[in-house]
Amino acid sequence: MIVLKFGGTSVGSIERIRHVADLIRRSAAKEGPVCVVVSAMAGETDRLVSLYKHLSSDTQTLEYDLLVASGEQASISLLSAALGSIGTKAQPLLGFQAGFVTNDARGRAKIKSIQTDRILELSSAGIIPIVAGFQGADESGQITTLGRGGSDTSAVALAAALKARRCDIYTDVSGVYTADPRICKKARKIEKMSFEEMMELASLGAKVLHPRSVEIAAKYQIPVRVVNTFEESEGTTVGPFEDLLESPVVTALTTDHNLALITLKNVRKSEELLDRLFGKLSEENVIVDIIVHSAIREDGSFDLSFSTPKEDVSLVERSLQSLALEASQIDTSLSKVSLVGSGMRSHSGVAARVFKTLARGQIPIVCTTTSEIKISCVVPQIHAEKALQSLHDEFCIVRE
Amino acid sequence: MIVLKFGGTSVGSIERIRHVADLIRRSAAKEGPVCVVVSAMAGETDRLVSLYKHLSSDTQTLEYDLLVASGEQASISLLSAALGSIGTKAQPLLGFQAGFVTNDARGRAKIKSIQTDRILELSSAGIIPIVAGFQGADESGQITTLGRGGSDTSAVALAAALKARRCDIYTDVSGVYTADPRICKKARKIEKMSFEEMMELASLGAKVLHPRSVEIAAKYQIPVRVVNTFEESEGTTVGPFEDLLESPVVTALTTDHNLALITLKNVRKSEELLDRLFGKLSEENVIVDIIVHSAIREDGSFDLSFSTPKEDVSLVERSLQSLALEASQIDTSLSKVSLVGSGMRSHSGVAARVFKTLARGQIPIVCTTTSEIKISCVVPQIHAEKALQSLHDEFCIVRE
Repeated sequence: MIVLKFGGTSVGSIERIRHVADLIRRSAAKEGPVCVVVSAMAGETDRLVSLYKHLSSDTQTLEYDLLVASGEQASISLLSAALGSIGTKAQPLLGFQAGFVTNDARGRAKIKSIQTDRILELSSAGIIPIVAGFQGADESGQITTLGRGGSDTSAVALAAALKARRCDIYTDVSGVYTADPRICKKARKIEKMSFEEMMELASLGAKVLHPRSVEIAAKYQIPVRVVNTFEESEGTTVGPFEDLLESPVVTALTTDHNLALITLKNVRKSEELLDRLFGKLSEENVIVDIIVHSAIREDGSFDLSFSTPKEDVSLVERSLQSLALEASQIDTSLSKVSLVGSGMRSHSGVAARVFKTLARGQIPIVCTTTSEIKISCVVPQIHAEKALQSLHDEFCIVRE
Repeated sequence: MIVLKFGGTSVGSIERIRHVADLIRRSAAKEGPVCVVVSAMAGETDRLVSLYKHLSSDTQTLEYDLLVASGEQASISLLSAALGSIGTKAQPLLGFQAGFVTNDARGRAKIKSIQTDRILELSSAGIIPIVAGFQGADESGQITTLGRGGSDTSAVALAAALKARRCDIYTDVSGVYTADPRICKKARKIEKMSFEEMMELASLGAKVLHPRSVEIAAKYQIPVRVVNTFEESEGTTVGPFEDLLESPVVTALTTDHNLALITLKNVRKSEELLDRLFGKLSEENVIVDIIVHSAIREDGSFDLSFSTPKEDVSLVERSLQSLALEASQIDTSLSKVSLVGSGMRSHSGVAARVFKTLARGQIPIVCTTTSEIKISCVVPQIHAEKALQSLHDEFCIVRE
């Protein structure tokens, strides 16, 4: 079995739905049994959410889930009808009909299990199951949604439950690139990459796959292929490719502009305060990415900076207040440029080359963070494009 | 318990949904427990159906049901959120969650039973159930729809199952009128009318209530009130008012332009042919309304005319062909003007007054049909308005 997932733009119009139906028919003829997961038609979820937001700001409700789940209900029905019209047997299944059992966290449910009986039954009767992504039902039978980006997660989780050979994510880009081709003209498509690399890229702001879906793919070792719905090409396969002999040092670069750097100057207390501050932030579900702690001065004071997504700034301010602290500076004019590659493990000196490259371009580095397979530098947003381009040039990415 | 039903125009925008929420809150405060049935937002069902029709002409499919059912799924969620935002507890329920069990006739399902446990449970917990009209699920759990106009039927059937005191149908007109006020300036709103009168009016083309819903209301003796969502007024109550002492002869008038008159001239065989012809038409689900059979001539031949809705003409032609017959004439430029009133039972000479009135206005009558409480005359469509106005004047409808 192969799972095929189609995003909103892939089913954004009647013409596109017809095209996708034909693509499914050909895929099934070539590869054997397939199971399809579909998002809502492009723009539909946004339309529904905007209607809802006129009435309520609380998106963690039963009403919100039921409302936005109607988007996929329409797209699976239309796609199944399109398959029927070209003589391919199909049946639309809502999330709960397809066996998706979730917890009851409204608007951001987690998949608990997938009962695949119905899907297997249809499939062995030669009927292609067309499953609504992004949704399921909790144990009391109420319809739930997985939160934005959840259709990727539905598809990969279903592939895992079905022990599928592969999960194909059909979208409007041709695969994963060494950098965003709109910014970096020399960017090239990556043929193969490891789960780990994709996971870093996804969490660093690359929009191709949702990090949750990559995590599941890695856990169950399901190869995920990112392909363009509208062109014939191989796309990018994310899979268990840890031991490629000729790993390039850097596989891909990405930038993230959704970043605020909060700085507290001349803080006087140390460990106990850090503990209380970051404890409080984690309690409030604030995502803290980079933390920079200056050396402690002779008088015992030090400076502290940390970064969060921009939307968390007001939460941070409230948390600081509750600890009788105040930010000296909140900078939202920054970007984070990141380099990811499993090859970094075996190549030392990558950081030095990064710093040298940026210095050569007179790009100031505000702060830096690293992991085994990535380096991120925070730079002023006005320099972000140039940083991306010159780092792309420097590491001259070629994958064999 | 009272059931309140809101049509598509009543929930056609965020402003209107807010207005309806307020109306429900006030209604519940005044009248005690209410249960709400809602249609899809105005235009939404048409939008979904038109998407579907690009892909398939078969509307009796699982896909069609699932697709159009998504319209009510959105409207109940939004209305429930609107109630929440003004502090009134509510919960959206899809048809199947509200207990609507139907047969599996796709696109035109019939309600088999309504399991009201969930609704009663919510209601006794002080939560207003907001039920999706027009839909249910068959016994295998697949979502079904009742066909257009089905939300009225949902509401009245639910009122019957709940043994409700009343069913209020909120819509964009102020009640049932003695004639269409857009055509007949002197038309007045009717305060009370019998189930029987409403049933005749609904089947004669008055669009206010769906005939199926009136039938159920009559069977279970549930008073139905037709009220305007957008103005404070009493509306029209349809109920067990058979024995109003001062019944007017005619309660209301209506016109129907969706009419084709098929004429077969010089037919030679008689009973046997009529039997085969109307047997065949009924087999094909053609609705035959008026049948006019001329006297049989000396040579044994006769003329036959019958009327059907315009959309059935091609079915009629096919049926005639299969019996080696052919229509001499198919006239689609006609209208049917009907007078309805329980008072007709006790007043003779109504037909004579009708003919005299139309003759005075030089309006030719093509044919006529009567029942205990109605008279319908088919006239050329160009004369239909004048016929309606002069008959309205003649019978000078006043109900005490």
